[in-house]
Amino acid sequence: MRKFLTIVAALALCISATAQQAIFMAAPLKSPEINPDGTVTFRVRAPKAVSVTVSGEFVKGASSAAMVEKNGVWEYTTPEAVAPEMYPYTFSIDGVQTLDLSNAWVNRDVASLSSVLLVPGGRADLYTIQDVPHGTVSKVWYDSAVAGFDRRMTVYTPAGYEQNTKTRYPVLYVLHGIGGDEDAWVTQGRACQILDNLIAKGEAKPMIVVFTNGNISEEAAPLENSTGYTVASMGLPKTMEGTFETSFPEVVKFIDANYRTIAKKQSRAICGLSMGGFHTLYITLNNPDMFNYSGMFSAAIGTGSEQRGNAAIYGDMDKKIATYFSKKPALLWIGIGDADFLYKANTDFRAKLDAGKYPYEYMETGDGHVWKNWRIYLSEFVPKLFK
Amino acid sequence: MRKFLTIVAALALCISATAQQAIFMAAPLKSPEINPDGTVTFRVRAPKAVSVTVSGEFVKGASSAAMVEKNGVWEYTTPEAVAPEMYPYTFSIDGVQTLDLSNAWVNRDVASLSSVLLVPGGRADLYTIQDVPHGTVSKVWYDSAVAGFDRRMTVYTPAGYEQNTKTRYPVLYVLHGIGGDEDAWVTQGRACQILDNLIAKGEAKPMIVVFTNGNISEEAAPLENSTGYTVASMGLPKTMEGTFETSFPEVVKFIDANYRTIAKKQSRAICGLSMGGFHTLYITLNNPDMFNYSGMFSAAIGTGSEQRGNAAIYGDMDKKIATYFSKKPALLWIGIGDADFLYKANTDFRAKLDAGKYPYEYMETGDGHVWKNWRIYLSEFVPKLFK
Repeated sequence: MRKFLTIVAALALCISATAQQAIFMAAPLKSPEINPDGTVTFRVRAPKAVSVTVSGEFVKGASSAAMVEKNGVWEYTTPEAVAPEMYPYTFSIDGVQTLDLSNAWVNRDVASLSSVLLVPGGRADLYTIQDVPHGTVSKVWYDSAVAGFDRRMTVYTPAGYEQNTKTRYPVLYVLHGIGGDEDAWVTQGRACQILDNLIAKGEAKPMIVVFTNGNISEEAAPLENSTGYTVASMGLPKTMEGTFETSFPEVVKFIDANYRTIAKKQSRAICGLSMGGFHTLYITLNNPDMFNYSGMFSAAIGTGSEQRGNAAIYGDMDKKIATYFSKKPALLWIGIGDADFLYKANTDFRAKLDAGKYPYEYMETGDGHVWKNWRIYLSEFVPKLFK
Repeated sequence: MRKFLTIVAALALCISATAQQAIFMAAPLKSPEINPDGTVTFRVRAPKAVSVTVSGEFVKGASSAAMVEKNGVWEYTTPEAVAPEMYPYTFSIDGVQTLDLSNAWVNRDVASLSSVLLVPGGRADLYTIQDVPHGTVSKVWYDSAVAGFDRRMTVYTPAGYEQNTKTRYPVLYVLHGIGGDEDAWVTQGRACQILDNLIAKGEAKPMIVVFTNGNISEEAAPLENSTGYTVASMGLPKTMEGTFETSFPEVVKFIDANYRTIAKKQSRAICGLSMGGFHTLYITLNNPDMFNYSGMFSAAIGTGSEQRGNAAIYGDMDKKIATYFSKKPALLWIGIGDADFLYKANTDFRAKLDAGKYPYEYMETGDGHVWKNWRIYLSEFVPKLFK
């Protein structure tokens, strides 16, 4: 037995020096810890620190909460139960922002990293990995004639897709916001968990879901492209000027050519958040025979991009809207938070639809331009599709 | 224009408060920065810190190097050019280990996180994303009768797989070490980049590559299973006692049923590192008609696990070896570092093969039981397959 333990310790060497170091360092801390009463405790070891705080939306009434030190370990327990939700958070140790290295769950949001707490329960149970059949999640490259290079997308095929080789599936295209990429909905949006869980409960039809990269100047997400490892800033070229919208039919063509889709309008949906909501609107209007369901989540419309961009894509709105609705799409869905800086632009757009007596569904939530809302909107939108 | 800039700033809100904060905080630091002379500079802002160090294998002759402060930013430049390689690294700020938050590339190694530096050049160019056709990388779940639940694997299909619908492909199975999972070879092993690049150069045949999870008690990698978000320790049950080896034919059956494989021995290979090398040996010997190519990378043989485990899997070695070689496999490949704690066990195993006049190929490198070696071994092994 002694030899075995020696071997296990030695096998620990099969991981890097860093991991090895962690194993032989001080006892690991449990952080975050969801307590039986629903409060959450965060811990970080920093014996020499003078001040340690934790930041996250579970901190109420302030941007951060002071942690308290005992034996070199700083701790903070929320005063109340934390509502079910996915929360990014960070620590600040003497003014230096750090992750919670006791927690392996790290999220990248554009160029920023944070640790992640997920409190299950209620709607947040849709965001957790349940013991249900899981779809396949693939990173796929397609040749973009418009961009002039290969580009990456994420494709979700529902559980059973590989086995049911005679079955064809409807397709939902899901678009990210500015600064995001083809990973954003999968990581921060928990879209694959939402799909797995809604399908398993019978609340959504099995469907293929395609997460594109809406930054047409990019091959792929940061760290996933051949142009190096620098994370893109918010200032990418060609994000809201018409090129991505122009290119979208080639995405649909690729998916229809490479997956067992039902390649017709009745079985196609599209939605997106912020810039992706803007893209959704203009892709839909410029291709009125392509999508039967369109979802605008906190759409970044009315920002002036329409005036600066490609007139062929953004012009003739009234006429395009009339044509689109004349073809009787099954659903135009609009969701926005009442604190969103795009609230007025979306209200104005709805007034325009109302004036034309054009039908749409509307959901207004609290909060602003945040992932919390976009997870809600996706989980509301998906059950309405392909019924 | 002013309105546009306001909107861009507002759109920054479409990402989380954390990301937003980063954007409006002090100017971002460039870290790590590969300088024209090949040295690398690391930077971290910590105005109140007393001592900051950086740890990584680029630090020579010590476990860490002191960084020097100027205007609140701590900096370290390596004294010499850093050799092309992938390096995990961390900072220590007044004794608290942290990641480099200027660098979005984070690696998880079992439960430990580190930042990643990749210095291109030489063999390390195989580890970078090049402007070549990319394969599809999928996370796929299969129903394991042996485990009693669905389990996750990573499947790489080479560029063109989707389009060349009449083509069937050989399959390589790639196994991880103790503490690892179905993500390890993809993240730390850079296996998909190695495959993309070797195939693009014509140095490897297009092949399907399957990365299994060798922890048969687990559904999936940490953070990817339904049992919660705790990262598994090294002490998982049933890692080297025969169950995973017993279950392996069901993996092969699943792949043959769901992918366009050439479902015969001549077109199947298997390899693995450490525990995965151990698994490779016993899966191969117990299924002598299954694999034509087997690669043992720093294999964790001779640790006593064989004596404690399932005798049906680990017993009758001499007879199984004789049977295996009697069927004339194309290649048994063994690689190990001269500083590996398993060096002697592998030397003993080779002596046994030599005594029986059994053919194998052998590669001995420097260093020990580290990912650097496993990336080398994979990139040496793959070009030998299916020729």
